Amino acid sequence: MNSLNRKHLLGLEGWNADEINTVLDSAVSFKEVSERSVKKVPALRGKTIVNLFFENSTRTRISFELAEKRLSADTVNFSASTSSVKKGESLRDTVENIEAMKIDMIVIRHSSAGAPFFLSQIVDASVINAGDGQHEHPTQGLLDIFTLREKWGALAGRKVVIVGDVKHSRVARSNIHGLVALDAEVVLCGPPTLMPVGIESLGVKVETNLPRALEGADAVNVLRIQLERQRAGLLPSLDEYARVWGIDNRALQYTSPDCIVMHPGPMNRGVEIAQDVADGDRAVILEQVTNGLAVRMAVLYLIGGAEMARDDETTETSGGQVNARPKTQEAA
Amino acid sequence: MNSLNRKHLLGLEGWNADEINTVLDSAVSFKEVSERSVKKVPALRGKTIVNLFFENSTRTRISFELAEKRLSADTVNFSASTSSVKKGESLRDTVENIEAMKIDMIVIRHSSAGAPFFLSQIVDASVINAGDGQHEHPTQGLLDIFTLREKWGALAGRKVVIVGDVKHSRVARSNIHGLVALDAEVVLCGPPTLMPVGIESLGVKVETNLPRALEGADAVNVLRIQLERQRAGLLPSLDEYARVWGIDNRALQYTSPDCIVMHPGPMNRGVEIAQDVADGDRAVILEQVTNGLAVRMAVLYLIGGAEMARDDETTETSGGQVNARPKTQEAA
Amino acid sequence: MNSLNRKHLLGLEGWNADEINTVLDSAVSFKEVSERSVKKVPALRGKTIVNLFFENSTRTRISFELAEKRLSADTVNFSASTSSVKKGESLRDTVENIEAMKIDMIVIRHSSAGAPFFLSQIVDASVINAGDGQHEHPTQGLLDIFTLREKWGALAGRKVVIVGDVKHSRVARSNIHGLVALDAEVVLCGPPTLMPVGIESLGVKVETNLPRALEGADAVNVLRIQLERQRAGLLPSLDEYARVWGIDNRALQYTSPDCIVMHPGPMNRGVEIAQDVADGDRAVILEQVTNGLAVRMAVLYLIGGAEMARDDETTETSGGQVNARPKTQEAA
Repeated sequence: MNSLNRKHLLGLEGWNADEINTVLDSAVSFKEVSERSVKKVPALRGKTIVNLFFENSTRTRISFELAEKRLSADTVNFSASTSSVKKGESLRDTVENIEAMKIDMIVIRHSSAGAPFFLSQIVDASVINAGDGQHEHPTQGLLDIFTLREKWGALAGRKVVIVGDVKHSRVARSNIHGLVALDAEVVLCGPPTLMPVGIESLGVKVETNLPRALEGADAVNVLRIQLERQRAGLLPSLDEYARVWGIDNRALQYTSPDCIVMHPGPMNRGVEIAQDVADGDRAVILEQVTNGLAVRMAVLYLIGGAEMARDDETTETSGGQVNARPKTQEAA
Repeated sequence: MNSLNRKHLLGLEGWNADEINTVLDSAVSFKEVSERSVKKVPALRGKTIVNLFFENSTRTRISFELAEKRLSADTVNFSASTSSVKKGESLRDTVENIEAMKIDMIVIRHSSAGAPFFLSQIVDASVINAGDGQHEHPTQGLLDIFTLREKWGALAGRKVVIVGDVKHSRVARSNIHGLVALDAEVVLCGPPTLMPVGIESLGVKVETNLPRALEGADAVNVLRIQLERQRAGLLPSLDEYARVWGIDNRALQYTSPDCIVMHPGPMNRGVEIAQDVADGDRAVILEQVTNGLAVRMAVLYLIGGAEMARDDETTETSGGQVNARPKTQEAA
Repeated sequence: MNSLNRKHLLGLEGWNADEINTVLDSAVSFKEVSERSVKKVPALRGKTIVNLFFENSTRTRISFELAEKRLSADTVNFSASTSSVKKGESLRDTVENIEAMKIDMIVIRHSSAGAPFFLSQIVDASVINAGDGQHEHPTQGLLDIFTLREKWGALAGRKVVIVGDVKHSRVARSNIHGLVALDAEVVLCGPPTLMPVGIESLGVKVETNLPRALEGADAVNVLRIQLERQRAGLLPSLDEYARVWGIDNRALQYTSPDCIVMHPGPMNRGVEIAQDVADGDRAVILEQVTNGLAVRMAVLYLIGGAEMARDDETTETSGGQVNARPKTQEAA
């Protein structure tokens, strides 16, 4: 089928297994595109995508930008410190102006949870959330799940442990929604000060003792520690954090022998993840990055290309650009 | 015809009605391109355009960049604080270096009035002024006039009132030259401290009493107040400014009932323009943004494409890229 | 032939005359591309190039970016202050992440000598050095030599004098390696404090007396003085520097009458080079910039396109993009 009845990707909350699998199936094809000598398909030719990054982000911004370019979209980058666009109204004016230039999609990263949702209410363009505050980072969730599905085939019944500062982590939240939708067993572990109250209502377990949490785990997703949390008194010293909650080879003794180690990057080596684990056989951290590009191509294609397909039915069809299936060899 | 005998767009001063209408006619076609599913024509394929922004500008830069990409040009952005290129000679070295890379067009925004003219004297490339000091912002003038012409058909005899800090406004100056060339009646209104002495010589009237200025107006173009002018003692308090010169529904009682409200953005809502006017039926502020893209495509096409047409006559013709009329469907 | 058995361009040290001439021959073709109306060839279509600039650089970055776009590559820019990526390990993580996105080439400028070599050891992508610390700036060396070869045909036996802060100059080092490989006679001149001990072992002469150094010179390559060296006590006053080592018309009396004057830019006019020499008939400074683009296209093509050719032999060939010779007219 390869079609998705979604105009936006605001978060994985509310996405069902079929929807998630549609994206992941499509990402399989797109992963192959990036292995080719000519890494480009005409899927989104003539579409305009604006990358609105109100927070700094090197790797996510580059990943989206490459995904857009490999789909042949026209892309424009807009970076702003949140300070200049603090008020909702000002964000509204900024975005309404950009949309008046007839853009098709907005990829937005913003320090305020809900900013992508807010946008989706006021613009006609599709909105892709590239991380909003402590809310969600859905393409990260999808790429983590893609990585697991690639290893395992199916996620049902597999035990995934998410370790670290769950409270402030949009990565954790998107993973939880996606993993639960696919019937994985999700266990959260981390300092009690960094564990949101009532998070069990999402269908996950909380276990603050790391060895117990890791028992029989099939995958560990290690969250990045934000050093500023420590200054705020929410964390013990980094040494103590590393000793109690850091993922090192000692901790991995409790897991299943095939346990996969994931990290969304950038890593604080020696803090939340030990040097030799980061570079070891169980880590799939660079595969996650590779998969992130494929997943983002799939999301942009399914959301933006579907719109194109709809448009083409109502207007005179124009040939070349409709032929946008990822496997198709593009005529130069 | 669709041809324009201009190598540069430095300002609207000296442009006649035919020239302005040639751009606006072309912009009608380009506006349609941005409504398509595939928003792209091959008009400037293989042309290189450098966007030299010595002043910050989000929306004008994005508008030009999108215009260039939808025309299939190759674009490179160059941003610099004016401080590092303060001296004319240094600007000269910078630009001569960039031009030595064989670029076709330079879009320049600079805090010094005359910088685009200076460039046009020393480079072979076409120069497009994207705003120079308090001199001109000709594509803004053209897009404002395009918006009016779209509503009215012709501008002759229509009353356009420009309200605000006329003295420091390059938007006002470009509008004045264009509107006068098209035989509109132009009235300027604003604090006497912000009204240039002798401006009447350009063929406009000055009226510092807002109700009298607005009497029977067909359009009001509301200038953005620069908050730093107030600190310099040229403005009263913002509250008083809003009360005396702000455009609100009370002020609009004096105008023609169909009066259009324009603003070049970004707006200081509640200062020079009231919230409900900004979001009201009379405002065409987002249409201005949409039209800005079409007008910039037309300017780039007429100036850059004309050169291409000339080049093609003297070299062996190469097929595809000549077929650059905006309405033409591009082969993928 | 037009083929080069190199995966990286880390420096000109160790390059032989054949290799250098292969690049320069190819650059001749690419220089013609930038003279066309349609300045674009499909040579690197679907290839991804990341420009990693850890040091500010306007002209080198724009030159590479234009070269990439004229070869139809997809390009992504990454700028970072060196401070955030100070440790080798952190640079490693950054680059491994970027490479996981399946990029083909990395163009890197870095303040640490050896950073490009370090990268080449850990990534699969081709690495192009765009300047590393005080080590090498090989595309600058190649473009300087291209400029000389264009004037002279062959370099053997020609006397090239490099004047200035040789010690801290990566431009000097790349020129030395290339010029010596092509059998030019290289003389270095500058303040003794700024002359590296033992540099004669590279096959050059050192002469700290400027008139003697310039005697019969066929070309003078004037290095840019870094003003911070003066603060460090390595330079006399700028006035004195200009008087003793500055290249002015008086100094040029000692050279051959056809002596060419080169400068890598940006110039400190009136310091290392006199105003009238910079703008005079002997200066080829803007030609160097033009040639820089052609040389960079050649380097990217020979390194990136060669890989493409190899890839195409092993996979099913896909037509259009193989036809990547610079002279070929691209179908639109």
